[in-house]
Amino acid sequence: MSRLRRREALRADLRSRDLDALLVTDLLNIRYLTGFTGSNAALLLHACGEDGTVFCTDGRYRAQSERQVPGLRRVIERGSDRRLAREARDAGVGAVGFESHVVTVDEYEALADIAGAQRLHKASRLVEQLRQVKDAEEIGALRAACVAADTALAGLLAEGGLRPGRTEREVARDLEARMVQAGAAGPSFETIVAAGAHSAVPHHRPTDAELRTGDFVKMDFGALVDGYHSDMTRTVVLGEAADWQRDLYSLVAAAQAAGRTALRSGTEVRDVDTAARTVIDGAGHGEEFPHGLGHGVGLAIHEAPTLSQLGAGTLESGMAVTVEPGVYLDGRGGVRIEDTLVVGDGDPELLTLTTKDLVVA
Amino acid sequence: MSRLRRREALRADLRSRDLDALLVTDLLNIRYLTGFTGSNAALLLHACGEDGTVFCTDGRYRAQSERQVPGLRRVIERGSDRRLAREARDAGVGAVGFESHVVTVDEYEALADIAGAQRLHKASRLVEQLRQVKDAEEIGALRAACVAADTALAGLLAEGGLRPGRTEREVARDLEARMVQAGAAGPSFETIVAAGAHSAVPHHRPTDAELRTGDFVKMDFGALVDGYHSDMTRTVVLGEAADWQRDLYSLVAAAQAAGRTALRSGTEVRDVDTAARTVIDGAGHGEEFPHGLGHGVGLAIHEAPTLSQLGAGTLESGMAVTVEPGVYLDGRGGVRIEDTLVVGDGDPELLTLTTKDLVVA
Repeated sequence: MSRLRRREALRADLRSRDLDALLVTDLLNIRYLTGFTGSNAALLLHACGEDGTVFCTDGRYRAQSERQVPGLRRVIERGSDRRLAREARDAGVGAVGFESHVVTVDEYEALADIAGAQRLHKASRLVEQLRQVKDAEEIGALRAACVAADTALAGLLAEGGLRPGRTEREVARDLEARMVQAGAAGPSFETIVAAGAHSAVPHHRPTDAELRTGDFVKMDFGALVDGYHSDMTRTVVLGEAADWQRDLYSLVAAAQAAGRTALRSGTEVRDVDTAARTVIDGAGHGEEFPHGLGHGVGLAIHEAPTLSQLGAGTLESGMAVTVEPGVYLDGRGGVRIEDTLVVGDGDPELLTLTTKDLVVA
Repeated sequence: MSRLRRREALRADLRSRDLDALLVTDLLNIRYLTGFTGSNAALLLHACGEDGTVFCTDGRYRAQSERQVPGLRRVIERGSDRRLAREARDAGVGAVGFESHVVTVDEYEALADIAGAQRLHKASRLVEQLRQVKDAEEIGALRAACVAADTALAGLLAEGGLRPGRTEREVARDLEARMVQAGAAGPSFETIVAAGAHSAVPHHRPTDAELRTGDFVKMDFGALVDGYHSDMTRTVVLGEAADWQRDLYSLVAAAQAAGRTALRSGTEVRDVDTAARTVIDGAGHGEEFPHGLGHGVGLAIHEAPTLSQLGAGTLESGMAVTVEPGVYLDGRGGVRIEDTLVVGDGDPELLTLTTKDLVVA
């Protein structure tokens, strides 16, 4: 039902752009519009309605597509996008949008050979635009993904999984295994575990370096549930926290709270970034917060909107985003604190529920 | 060292095509050529040598790129491919190849605006071509990935992980957790566990269906180690095997052995497929083997060469491929047996070492 509504919303958009159809080739967009989860498909979505709409995948997915895409006409063929370009031509569809941000130069030439270049029109990110605002089903999946990550971290902490002598890599694998045990299909991206000076590297990859007493341990990780990605960062201290660590942590926590407070329907995305950044700038650490405040999250780990000074547009209720300021002191250590939240008319809904008080493990 | 050799090999190829440089934008190709593992980068590889070659990534990866790409000139900028298009223009590089099978229509237009359309030349799959033949370092990583998968399955079987009442999903997660424990960064693709009639679906996704005595249980899974993917399928029977199951298993095992025997440097890829397919055709089950025999495997789970009737070209020593025939009896059950192997001048090297005798778990 929700997918039918999504297709209807896209149709209204196509009609407003004088497109008679959209050739959807991005697999996440196809999943969003149809529920199909295989690795090859294309969808020719007609602006006029479900009757003209055709879904295509190859023989491996015959049974799966019958089950997942029961409501649409289905065609089984290997080169799915090319087959649908032929369908569009044979059916005399006038203006066919194609996803010019996804279709490669080589593939465009093949499609134009089939359907004629004059029939094809660049139509960039139409589905991605719709995907920004999540419906109840999507928020349910995001919530479940966040619960799996929260559960994994709680188990890790409760069972002494963070202790001197363990390596970053061991901790990363432990977190990932616990997310799977908590119901995730897997991690939603490459888990970051960064100890000591490594915590000052924003996107550190886990190494065989051992955790030591007094280290910051920064963990940025998420779970994948029903195709939806959670994203959370927590930074803890091992053994006991030095004053500089408490100060740095408090600063980032205050910036993160300011970002969450600013997160509300109607606000410019840039202003949310500014709200957090001002706190860090005020403490003289602006240079050490070298990335944007956050990003949309859903079927992709990074999607629209972008919460940064380069972002444009206004928040809407139902957008799912991260808020993740960080301050990184080169050679010493860094702190990042990140939640996944859903934008609302009032306070956002917090999906990642692990405490943001400084944990000394 | 090996990466320098890879870049030298690509340079020779560029010179033979009268290209002065290649703008590499595919992240796996960049990883192959430089060792960089981040999520944003571009590489302008000059045909003349390392001096003119430039690597670009964004600020998040400054430290990581210093470590992973020490030998090349590095530039830090967000829109890495566009920055390198500017570098090529400013340096007066004549003919710049771009990866037309990767670059989207929108991105091509941006690059052409910067560098001029007359400077840009379609150059498709040059690095992918090189990647087909693996060097010792790559085979080491593939071997480690295969060991992790073998270890996971051995543990699952030894500890009674396959038993009536467990669900497909539980078994899939168990395998994945065990691969991680055995040193994998994660599964190399979405694990398939298909029990009973589901085993007749080539690409079944695990459900909450419970395993039952007498079921075929088909497991297709792999581990990811240092970016390299293993790929293995084993089909076992739960409790006791019926005659039809033994017969079907023997047929697929014979076809798989025939495929492995044909796998040798100098052989046409199509002929390897034929060697296995003939066995299955001869038993009257040709229609029930609806996919190709195998595919290359490496930094991607599916890469060149393709072992199928649609494939073209000749095997070379050092290619890593899968051999995975299957016969699927709709509504009853199916068997697939798959190894990852390295092509040689004599017998191929078998990387997936789990037995292919029929296991009754």
